[in-house]
Amino acid sequence: MRVIEDLWLIGIGTGSLSHITLEGVAALRAAQVILVPHKGAGKDDLADLRYQIIAASGTAAQIIPFDYPTRDPALPYDARVSDWHDEIARRWQSAMVRAEADGPVALLVWGDPSLYDSTLRIARRLDPVPRLRAVPGITAIQALTAAHAIALNTVNGPVHITTGRRLRAQGWPEGVETVVVLLDGEAGFQHLTEPRLDIWWGAYLGSPDQLLHHGTLSDVTQTIVDLRANARARHGWIMDTYLMRKRP
Amino acid sequence: MRVIEDLWLIGIGTGSLSHITLEGVAALRAAQVILVPHKGAGKDDLADLRYQIIAASGTAAQIIPFDYPTRDPALPYDARVSDWHDEIARRWQSAMVRAEADGPVALLVWGDPSLYDSTLRIARRLDPVPRLRAVPGITAIQALTAAHAIALNTVNGPVHITTGRRLRAQGWPEGVETVVVLLDGEAGFQHLTEPRLDIWWGAYLGSPDQLLHHGTLSDVTQTIVDLRANARARHGWIMDTYLMRKRP
Ligand SMILES: C[S@@+](CC[C@H](N)C(=O)[O-])C[C@H]1O[C@@H](n2cnc3c(N)ncnc32)[C@H](O)[C@@H]1O
Ligand SMILES: C[S@@+](CC[C@H](N)C(=O)[O-])C[C@H]1O[C@@H](n2cnc3c(N)ncnc32)[C@H](O)[C@@H]1O
Repeated sequence: MRVIEDLWLIGIGTGSLSHITLEGVAALRAAQVILVPHKGAGKDDLADLRYQIIAASGTAAQIIPFDYPTRDPALPYDARVSDWHDEIARRWQSAMVRAEADGPVALLVWGDPSLYDSTLRIARRLDPVPRLRAVPGITAIQALTAAHAIALNTVNGPVHITTGRRLRAQGWPEGVETVVVLLDGEAGFQHLTEPRLDIWWGAYLGSPDQLLHHGTLSDVTQTIVDLRANARARHGWIMDTYLMRKRP
Repeated sequence: MRVIEDLWLIGIGTGSLSHITLEGVAALRAAQVILVPHKGAGKDDLADLRYQIIAASGTAAQIIPFDYPTRDPALPYDARVSDWHDEIARRWQSAMVRAEADGPVALLVWGDPSLYDSTLRIARRLDPVPRLRAVPGITAIQALTAAHAIALNTVNGPVHITTGRRLRAQGWPEGVETVVVLLDGEAGFQHLTEPRLDIWWGAYLGSPDQLLHHGTLSDVTQTIVDLRANARARHGWIMDTYLMRKRP
């Protein structure tokens, strides 16, 4: 078994082949092995995009696919995630049985490896812990602001980034004009009672299927809820992100 | 005078030639004109990097340099910024006198055009307002987390992005474990009295001069203050960003 001495987490952006940076392309080319997760039938749009990016980079790295584990629904949430992360680390390690040479091992990470992604945490569960390199990538937040050609912040204003679950539990956070929400399976914006909110929403950002909508939150809530439901039915999955801003 | 019909704001990342995305390179190549600001003696390290990126892209666009205006210190803050933005828009427009052909006009924007950058706002002051396209770029925040190989957020936790001025005025924001600070000329972290904070700090991120330091805030405050002061004296300027996290 070859030990993973150098593990590179390469941010690939959020749906567009051309989101990757020159540093990302160079890292793919310099890697010796690229591990590609397979998540099972119907969920492999993303594996396809990974293969397209790998092919476009012109890398000669050995590509090693591995099956992604599923979470054990019988366990409580924290234990489930922890076990699952251990299992992912084990799969990386056992995929390395097939590695034909030593050298840097790369994983393609959706968006940026720092944002709501557990790959860095999983990597620290490897034994021994490899040298880690993170290559930044365009996040869904940036894909959203670029698509709408808007600023993330008001002039010198703070920005709060959160998840759908927290937004539902805690409402509008204190003292910020701008809130960005990721990981929201349930369109949490529809429960906000805050007055004077604008929303900029986007799904499948960066991809040919990109959907955008924006307006005064109370005016566009239903339209976005419907767009989401239809798109999810059509694709079988949805990834969306939105920015909300309080008018002064 | 040629009117700017299409204005592209191309994020170039924060100091590394290889931060630019493939989309950014393609946009530089497809642009007809690239406007490059000159900020005057001693401040043009950044203009140099812009020229390197333009050259590396292989674009055949016409490069038009223009002098960047300075702010009028006699005016109150808001009026000063507003006048200054108008003046920048006028300089873009008058630089177009030299344009030899119609077609998309590009500006290279440090980092990502959405993050603490006024180019999008200035562009909306042009008359007529051009069609705007924003090309995302790697931000200082991503360069920071990548350099330290850390996550931006705790597991599913919120992130608060703010400026040095606000941090000094308002202290640690309510209900967040993670705070990221940009635009801090005065090392605002040294005034925090919050217990159990860790800090990850970086300056000149992405560039060969990159400086990094991290640790328990109270332990490393003086070291970072000294690193900053020395680096600023050596370079004549400094750009730094830091992430702070509360330990549970
Ligand atoms: C597990 S997080 C990963 C975020 C990723 N690391 C990044 O930098 O954007 C997944 C969430 O990111 C957002 N997201 C990712 N890709 C997206 C896309 N193409 N369009 C809209 N939202 C997206 C969604 O909010 C989704 O629930
Ligand atoms: C006017 S803002 C522009 C931010 C930029 N649009 C981005 O996406 O990173 C300038 C601030 O960004 C941060 N910054 C930009 N480049 C940096 C670098 N190379 N290293 C550290 N901080 C940087 C600093 O906090 C600086 O005060």
